[in-house]
Amino acid sequence: MTDAPPPDTEVGHARKAGISRDDLLAAALRLIGPHRSVSTLSLREVAREAGIAPNSFYRQFRDMDELAVALIDLAGRSLRRIVGAARHRAETQRGIVRSSVETFMEQVRADDKLLHVLLREGTAGSDAFKQAVDRELSFFEDELRSDLVRLTSAEGAGLHRPDLVAKAITRLVFAMGATAMDLPPERDRELIEQLSTMVAMIISGARTMAQKRTRR
Amino acid sequence: MTDAPPPDTEVGHARKAGISRDDLLAAALRLIGPHRSVSTLSLREVAREAGIAPNSFYRQFRDMDELAVALIDLAGRSLRRIVGAARHRAETQRGIVRSSVETFMEQVRADDKLLHVLLREGTAGSDAFKQAVDRELSFFEDELRSDLVRLTSAEGAGLHRPDLVAKAITRLVFAMGATAMDLPPERDRELIEQLSTMVAMIISGARTMAQKRTRR
Repeated sequence: MTDAPPPDTEVGHARKAGISRDDLLAAALRLIGPHRSVSTLSLREVAREAGIAPNSFYRQFRDMDELAVALIDLAGRSLRRIVGAARHRAETQRGIVRSSVETFMEQVRADDKLLHVLLREGTAGSDAFKQAVDRELSFFEDELRSDLVRLTSAEGAGLHRPDLVAKAITRLVFAMGATAMDLPPERDRELIEQLSTMVAMIISGARTMAQKRTRR
Repeated sequence: MTDAPPPDTEVGHARKAGISRDDLLAAALRLIGPHRSVSTLSLREVAREAGIAPNSFYRQFRDMDELAVALIDLAGRSLRRIVGAARHRAETQRGIVRSSVETFMEQVRADDKLLHVLLREGTAGSDAFKQAVDRELSFFEDELRSDLVRLTSAEGAGLHRPDLVAKAITRLVFAMGATAMDLPPERDRELIEQLSTMVAMIISGARTMAQKRTRR
């Protein structure tokens, strides 16, 4: 395809012949930032950033919503791999809380902006990608729930409603993470302390509630 | 001021001579919704909805950011009044958790969209109104912290880090509320149950942690 470049094409972006889905996803990631969510990107902008004609976009994605959902899925998969790896290196419940929270905060500061996609898109934009973010969060919750159940029973303790423990932790960590993005990195240490204490409160409360129920 | 109406002025919107800040805030509230945050509104749109010429906007607000911050402040003040009133009607800690969560969820479904302003604007748009949302959330946290401290000591119990208890509860309730907005109202009952249990976990955990510290 050899479309004439539109008048607003930036100088220096040579048009590429073949472009993959990954190229378009990478272009979209370069464009988003603290003040730009995927929902504010236009198809034309992403095509320009990727160095293709807007029409070529449609070979890979039906529309910007489909690109946004693919980006959210990519972000969720990458993050679960990273946080899951950190969690498996830790061996105690306390260690798991701390290492998950620390790894999560490292991702807030990571250059790849993958976490930003999940943190931002859950609250703005189309239903399709709010649902995609929600799906990714529920995958996080499932994995966290299994780990918590495994660890608590290994320690001979009970845990009230592990599904809600995992959900509360995940939603809280993501909500605090969204705030952290806008704060200077010097505040990270303080936020990690706060989040670790909050998560410890939730787990401790669920254990206490399980004990009370057993005693009755 | 008698500007000629711009070509895109909707039929039926007669131009008003005097317009207050409240009129402009009300116009902005009418325009936002599940898929439109304040950050996506243009000054021109708000002026048109309020029935004034775009230039008249500047008599009340410097720019759209100033309007957004005023809207966030209005939303925060109204909600604190509503949730605070519900909390003061309840007398036990359990009652407080339940009535606050229920009142909050009622506001998710309320027609005035005030809560929507707080739920959406914290994660998108300019730093100025992210900070405004953060400020409103911290007012909620301060009031909740005082209530929790008062009630826990009335019950002769201790509470570990009441500031973090209040922060965890507030951030979690707002995060879950943002999700609830996009779900059908039939799910409200389930969400109220989930949220009440999560909040109870946080409080129970903070009490358990306070006990352990006293014992040492």
